[in-house]
Amino acid sequence: MEDILTVALDAMGGDHAPDVMIRGAVKAMEKKPNINILLVGREELLRQECAKYTYDKKRMEIIPASQEISCDEAPVAAIRHKKDSSIAVALELVKNKRADAFVSAGSTGAVLVGAQLIVGRMRGVRRPPLGAFIPTTKGTSLLVDNGANVDARPEHLLQFARLGSVYYENAMGVKNPRVALVNIGVEEEKGNALVKATYPLLRDCPDIRFIGSIEAREIPHGGADVIVCEGFTGNVILKLYEGVGGALISEIKAGMMSSLRSKMGALLVKPALKETVKRFDASEYGGAPLLGLNGLVVKTHGSSTEKEVCNCLIQCLTFKEQKIHEQFEKLYQ
Amino acid sequence: MEDILTVALDAMGGDHAPDVMIRGAVKAMEKKPNINILLVGREELLRQECAKYTYDKKRMEIIPASQEISCDEAPVAAIRHKKDSSIAVALELVKNKRADAFVSAGSTGAVLVGAQLIVGRMRGVRRPPLGAFIPTTKGTSLLVDNGANVDARPEHLLQFARLGSVYYENAMGVKNPRVALVNIGVEEEKGNALVKATYPLLRDCPDIRFIGSIEAREIPHGGADVIVCEGFTGNVILKLYEGVGGALISEIKAGMMSSLRSKMGALLVKPALKETVKRFDASEYGGAPLLGLNGLVVKTHGSSTEKEVCNCLIQCLTFKEQKIHEQFEKLYQ
Repeated sequence: MEDILTVALDAMGGDHAPDVMIRGAVKAMEKKPNINILLVGREELLRQECAKYTYDKKRMEIIPASQEISCDEAPVAAIRHKKDSSIAVALELVKNKRADAFVSAGSTGAVLVGAQLIVGRMRGVRRPPLGAFIPTTKGTSLLVDNGANVDARPEHLLQFARLGSVYYENAMGVKNPRVALVNIGVEEEKGNALVKATYPLLRDCPDIRFIGSIEAREIPHGGADVIVCEGFTGNVILKLYEGVGGALISEIKAGMMSSLRSKMGALLVKPALKETVKRFDASEYGGAPLLGLNGLVVKTHGSSTEKEVCNCLIQCLTFKEQKIHEQFEKLYQ
Repeated sequence: MEDILTVALDAMGGDHAPDVMIRGAVKAMEKKPNINILLVGREELLRQECAKYTYDKKRMEIIPASQEISCDEAPVAAIRHKKDSSIAVALELVKNKRADAFVSAGSTGAVLVGAQLIVGRMRGVRRPPLGAFIPTTKGTSLLVDNGANVDARPEHLLQFARLGSVYYENAMGVKNPRVALVNIGVEEEKGNALVKATYPLLRDCPDIRFIGSIEAREIPHGGADVIVCEGFTGNVILKLYEGVGGALISEIKAGMMSSLRSKMGALLVKPALKETVKRFDASEYGGAPLLGLNGLVVKTHGSSTEKEVCNCLIQCLTFKEQKIHEQFEKLYQ
């Protein structure tokens, strides 16, 4: 059964665990016959919860883990001391090749630290970035790094660009994707010290198609395929994307309820509006994989829904099918 | 005539100069009888352009300046060498108290450098920030700094917070506005080195009502009144705000044109939608003043329209009426 993908799923992480995690897993198995799940967490609880659903028992196994890591805990200490936490146990499954991938909606810090300590970085990769797909008017762009590495250095950003370019090319099927550096102006001399030092590294890198700086204004219009920035900026971009979109849509909905005329119109435009909103909803786009590890680790946000968990699990298939990990390794041979 | 506000306007700066600048000035004078304009730029050109409009000639005077500074020029060298540029001449008018304020849609770099070299910083202020009003679902927030200071240090961010708080309180009439620090998590230990070092300074400052960290997601929902960040992050936020808003609205419009049903609905919701879009359009909110100078300097973006130029000029009245400069001075006595 070469083509089966086994994903270790953190059943205890996220705001709606374990309920949403289990439902997401059941849904993913229904959609994709070649995904199997290792559900990691408190055995008794998970057994009870799983009893509520109908699925092929051979395809989802419960892996006991007696501890949990909360988002308030210091990540390094938590990973060191809670060896039987769902995150640590699941990461060991990836390390020992019992699982092909790990998906978690739990503590970002613990997942990032644990992934590097337990699964380990690929040789040559110093700071694995989180790469998230974001919707644009032209399609989909990859934002890398979106929060794993704050205070990163220029050579790290160069790695983000190279890893991101390979990931985008293989996941989206776009040859030589356009790579741009987030900046506050398009001229080469603009920017902060980090951006000024990073620019020539990207410009002179033969592995990527660097198109220069990109201002944040152009990101939603699809100004580049791979958007490179350090983690603090990337996290601000990802969250503001969500915030402005959500705020504007709630304002538009409220505005449409302001008169009888627009209420009638709202009924007619509702299906089209819903479609647009869905297309511009970042949660449709799966989780953020950590790029450059010796295994696949995907982080999805704490408030993930059943659909998001399901998309995240399915997203892991792409990595296997497109042999993305092997492509990464070629970068550092 | 104590209550007349005289604004020096850079007639040569911006993508649509001098046309849009002159029309904005004429409009502002129509709306506000206590605004007079000193129109700075090429005398002959401006005389010809002004001849197209009807306005009280005593209220708008042309001040000759034979040079211009383009956005491609290195700001420091341009300000030093082009003594007769519209920006330098206008800033001298503010310095010599012939004008109460300077408004420009020209080179941001040249305005920032020139303002500090010619008008000068208030005693005690080291890095004057740009403060821009942004729309939220709850009203209006102030983003400070939005691009004047990249690589700023913690003590600079403290100044941004204090100046911003005074500005917001007086311009918006909100006592003790809520001040928050842009971060990638709400917990105190989250963030990059700059944010971690800035947090305790803001927390312990008695002059401001610090409510802690704010994630970018909450900014459009009005999570704080005064949003403090360094200039690179602030510029990314401001431009992404504009970008996501614009992209989403164009997608919604396109979506509504996709079927006959939604086309009919679009006709009915159009007025309400237009109102919402206008409320969420940052350009409605005037320009960004540089806070903490020995005079008022307001920067508006290069693609400013007639309406934006007009709003920018009217915005200068608030500074005079609310004696905001005097309030700033009290901070550093």
